[in-house]
This record gives sequence, structure tokens and C-alpha cells, in this order.
Amino acid sequence: MLHFVRNDDGIYVTIFTMEDIYDLVIIGAGPSALTAAIYAAREDIKTLLIEKGVVGGLMATIDNIENYPGFPDGIEGLHLAEDFQKQAEKFGAQIEMFTTVEKIECHSGLDSESIKSDNKILKQVQDDKKIFKITTDNGVFSARAVLIASGNTYRKLGIPNEELVHYCATCDGAMYRGKKLVVIGGANAAVQEAMFLTKFADHIDLLVRSVVKASEILQKELTKYVADGKIAVHEQTAPDEILVEGEKVIGVKSGDKVFDCDGVFVFAGVIPNTDFLDGSGVELDETGHIKTDHELMTNVRGIFASGDVRSGATKQVASAVGEGVTAAISIREFLK
Amino acid sequence: MLHFVRNDDGIYVTIFTMEDIYDLVIIGAGPSALTAAIYAAREDIKTLLIEKGVVGGLMATIDNIENYPGFPDGIEGLHLAEDFQKQAEKFGAQIEMFTTVEKIECHSGLDSESIKSDNKILKQVQDDKKIFKITTDNGVFSARAVLIASGNTYRKLGIPNEELVHYCATCDGAMYRGKKLVVIGGANAAVQEAMFLTKFADHIDLLVRSVVKASEILQKELTKYVADGKIAVHEQTAPDEILVEGEKVIGVKSGDKVFDCDGVFVFAGVIPNTDFLDGSGVELDETGHIKTDHELMTNVRGIFASGDVRSGATKQVASAVGEGVTAAISIREFLK
Repeated sequence: MLHFVRNDDGIYVTIFTMEDIYDLVIIGAGPSALTAAIYAAREDIKTLLIEKGVVGGLMATIDNIENYPGFPDGIEGLHLAEDFQKQAEKFGAQIEMFTTVEKIECHSGLDSESIKSDNKILKQVQDDKKIFKITTDNGVFSARAVLIASGNTYRKLGIPNEELVHYCATCDGAMYRGKKLVVIGGANAAVQEAMFLTKFADHIDLLVRSVVKASEILQKELTKYVADGKIAVHEQTAPDEILVEGEKVIGVKSGDKVFDCDGVFVFAGVIPNTDFLDGSGVELDETGHIKTDHELMTNVRGIFASGDVRSGATKQVASAVGEGVTAAISIREFLK
Repeated sequence: MLHFVRNDDGIYVTIFTMEDIYDLVIIGAGPSALTAAIYAAREDIKTLLIEKGVVGGLMATIDNIENYPGFPDGIEGLHLAEDFQKQAEKFGAQIEMFTTVEKIECHSGLDSESIKSDNKILKQVQDDKKIFKITTDNGVFSARAVLIASGNTYRKLGIPNEELVHYCATCDGAMYRGKKLVVIGGANAAVQEAMFLTKFADHIDLLVRSVVKASEILQKELTKYVADGKIAVHEQTAPDEILVEGEKVIGVKSGDKVFDCDGVFVFAGVIPNTDFLDGSGVELDETGHIKTDHELMTNVRGIFASGDVRSGATKQVASAVGEGVTAAISIREFLK
């Protein structure tokens, strides 16, 4: 895809031949990425999705999605992801799975005047001359526009048997009717979800590494659950290990204490998948999510962001889908 | 739902009893409205949709929707609308069909201090005391928050047999392979869709009331189609009548000219359905669409807007759905 040639100054530079250049490379293959791909490919925008795992993102991990409009009986996340994929591929989108993006750079493409220039000048190149180079562990790809829809990863605790914990109360809470649970985390999400889980569980131990940092309103509400004996709050209590018998969770160990339970939910936040943006110049907010304007363009012209990785995302499948459309329409305008 | 009582000054005022008050009244029942209803009702927000016709909005008029993610083979608009409705009703949303909203007013609810006050002071009422009164041709409803998702109506020409024209090239163009068409309109949409329709039709007469007002790029592109003889542009040509034989369109009459054709497409713009907002104080843009902030709240606290009626809407089902989620989440925060 990349060719090395000497320029007028005798320096080797990389150039692209037009047939290798995608109009759009989308990083990620969750609901937002696949929606943008459906829209773009349907309008003959040459589109490639690069996905580090398989399609669907976090959506694919949800047992039953009840609130994506069009499926009154709910639909399995994996099934929905496969349908999104079929639809995108039907219109001609290509997907490279198991491919990790390492770096995004902006090149000046075929304009030899610009190729000679240094990086500062490259950034002044006209939009129609701009080419983005996307380096992956599976080769280098080039595109006239990039959509970052790489999503989030749940923050890991780094303790034994962590693979047995749950991350979604709405999804998995109902499995624990009349049981005992441990909830790990001390911010808004942990407190809110712990209270929600009392709909199902008889008792919940809330383990907080330092102190509860939820909003005042949530903390006030939490005191009612504590008074009712439904939730016990344990501050300064970091989990060391999920205790198991075979495949079954039986408790959480913290120091010399053991909290018996039937299941563990962790709400320790998410990490936006943006490692590969180091050095790209794309601006992030204080939580590491990507800042965009209302047309979902980042501060770098030609690079867009949508879905969970975007600053201000509501982290709902239907919202991600809507953002995929907005991004695709903005990208279509940009490519004109 | 409304009760009339004398206040301390002996003046009759309207009051509400709490059980009559909806948390949320949604005006309209298109994709954006129904999505907001799914989300709101699922979180026990007492929700009523008021719809002047049947559910689905313009979506319900589309034969086959190819780009709503989740349906790789496409889905009939009416079918999708029914599924959205089932899903909203499953979670407890109520729908009043064939009910036209006439007026929205803001009342102070149960706060007798405020009931005494004049309108200026009513607007200063705390959010949790605010009650919106929605007057319809089928009774008066009250709500703590209002979502306007009333959509658009196609602008009518007001000529005989207009009910036989088409409004969507993507939907109905393929019916006219190898045939002759008349396209009516002179702005971007008309020019763009006329060019698109040459994929199917052998020849297109484009009738423009005054002169072509499309963007420069589109006009330039149009000249190619004119040079190829695919499109003939007729300026200063307003249609007087759609000519028919039985139920079949055979031409369009303009003055003493007749343009023979097999079908007619009209792109004369849309009219946002906002009549009932006269006097509500809700701000509109220059095209009559409703202005919102990025959380989809209008300039009137407690009144939100989403979908095609909103200024800046992309007029896609999937976008409307995404906006429905955003609106529902903003409304949930507002109602807290």
C-alpha cells in the first residue's frame, strides 16, 4: 500500500497510489462504527473498518438488549452485532478483524510540493490532498478521512479470578434474586448500581478502595439502603482476590477479611481506547475521551469520533447508532 | 384532568391533581418520539404520546428502509413503526392517536403562591413546580416535561391530483426504470434528486416555479445531465395540474404546456409541524424548526425537541432514534 521513492531533494518519502487509498478508515467495529460504515458504503464511499477483536464492541457482550428500538422482545447483543455487520458488508464495507491500530499520521499524499515540506507545513495541506496513514500490527492503511469509534474498555482491578465478575447490573442483576453480592467501586456508578441491584439481591457489600466519592444526592439516598440493612459500605477496603470454588464465585478477599457472596459486580470506570492517538494531535478531555464539535469532527480536520470513545457520549447502543449517522454525513461533506 | 377553583383573590384558576399529571408528554409518535418513550417508560417515567394520526411519522410511509441498523435485508417502515410502538407500550407508555395538539402553556401547578402571580412570575417558578398544560382537540393534558417530536409535513402545491405524486426518490425511483418523469422544485433537493432519478428514468423534465436556486456545485453538475439530454430544465414553469387517466399519471400541465410523463416527484420543501407553539415562547430558526441546546432542551426549560422538527436534524430514522435517547436522558435529569 505504501511505496518509498526519492523526492527532488534525494530524500526517501512515502507515497500512495490512489487505488490503495480508502475514502474512510473506521477504527473500531461497534454499533457506531458499523452504522457509519452502512451509511458511507451505501453512498459508494470506500470504507474499511479496523477492529482489534471481533465486531460488536461492548454491545456484543450484552445478553439481551431491551432498549434498541425495533426489537420489542429484546435481542441478543451478539446477534444484533452480526446483523449490523451483514448490513455494512452488503453495501461494500470491508472489515479487518484482529488488527490493532498503533498510530495515525497525516501525510500530504501525492502533492510533491508538500511531500518536501516538514511536518508543520504538512498540516496546512488542503483537505483534498490530505492522506492519513494508519499503522497497525497487520500493515499500513491510508485514508482520506478517519472515524475513531474505538470504544471503551472496563478498567481492570488486576486481581485473581477477575474474569468472573460482572460489569452491567441491568444485564446480569436478575441472575442474583435472593442472593448475596459484592459490589466494587466508590463513585457514582458503583453507588447507583449497588442500589439498583437491591431489587434482586438480599444483601450487598460495597467495597470502596478509599472513600465513597459519589454525588451528595446519591450518598444521601445510599444512607437509606444502609439503614435498611440492604447495603453495607466498607471504605478503605481494596479487593485482593475473587474467591472461587471451581467456576463459582464464593467471596471476595480484602486483607484478612473475606466477604461471602454469590456474585461480584465491578464499577471501577472505563478506559477510552485511545492509546494509538499519542502524537496525532487529537484533543482529549480530562477523562481521556475524544473532544468533537457538533458534527463529530475532532480538532484535526478529517479525523472524526463517535460512540463511547467520544467525550459526552451517553453510552447507549441507540445513541451510538445515531452518532454513526451524524459522523457519516459529516464525513461525506468533508470528502466532497 | 383539570379542576377549576377560586384562589385567595377570588379568581378562578385551574389546578391539577397529582395523579393526572404525566411526567412526560411527547408530541408526535415517529421514531424519535417512540424511542424517547421506550427509554422514559422503561425507567418508570409516566409517559404519554399525543399523535395527530397513527404511529410512525414519515418513517411509516417508506416501503423499505435499508439503512436502519439491525435489518440487513431492509424493513418496511410501517412494520418498523409497529415494532417501535409495541416496545414503547411494553414498558408502559400510553399513546393517544388521532389527537391534535392546539397549545402548550406553562402553569405553576400546585403552588398557590405562584397561581396568584401573573405570567411573568409564573416563568420564574422552580422546575419541580412547573406544570405544562397541553390543550388538544381531545381534552387537556398536563405534564412536568414536554418533548416535541412532531416532525415535518411535505409542502403541498395545492393543485389537482397532487395525492398521486411521490416525495422520496430513494423509496420510489426504482418504479420508473426506462420511463419519463417530471420533477417539481428548484432548490438543492430537487436538483439532487432529479440527477439521482436518472439512474432509473430515461428522461426527466425539471419544472421550476422561478429559477434554479441550488448550490453552485449542484448547478454545475446539473449542466452535464442537461448536455446528455437526460434532464431538461424549465424555469418560470409552475405546475397547474397533475394530468391523469383513471388512477394513472400521464402528465403535468403548466399554462398551455403539457409535459407527458409516467410519474411525478415533488421536492418543494417540508414544513415543520409547530403551529401549536404559537405563544409558547419556544424559539424557532428561520426555517421554522425548533432550536435546541446540545442536550436537546429548547430555550424554555422543561420543553425539549428531537427528530425532524429540530433545527439541524439529519432526517434519518437512525438519527431520530439517537436523538430520542439523548432527549430521554436529558428529560430524566430535568425531572430529578
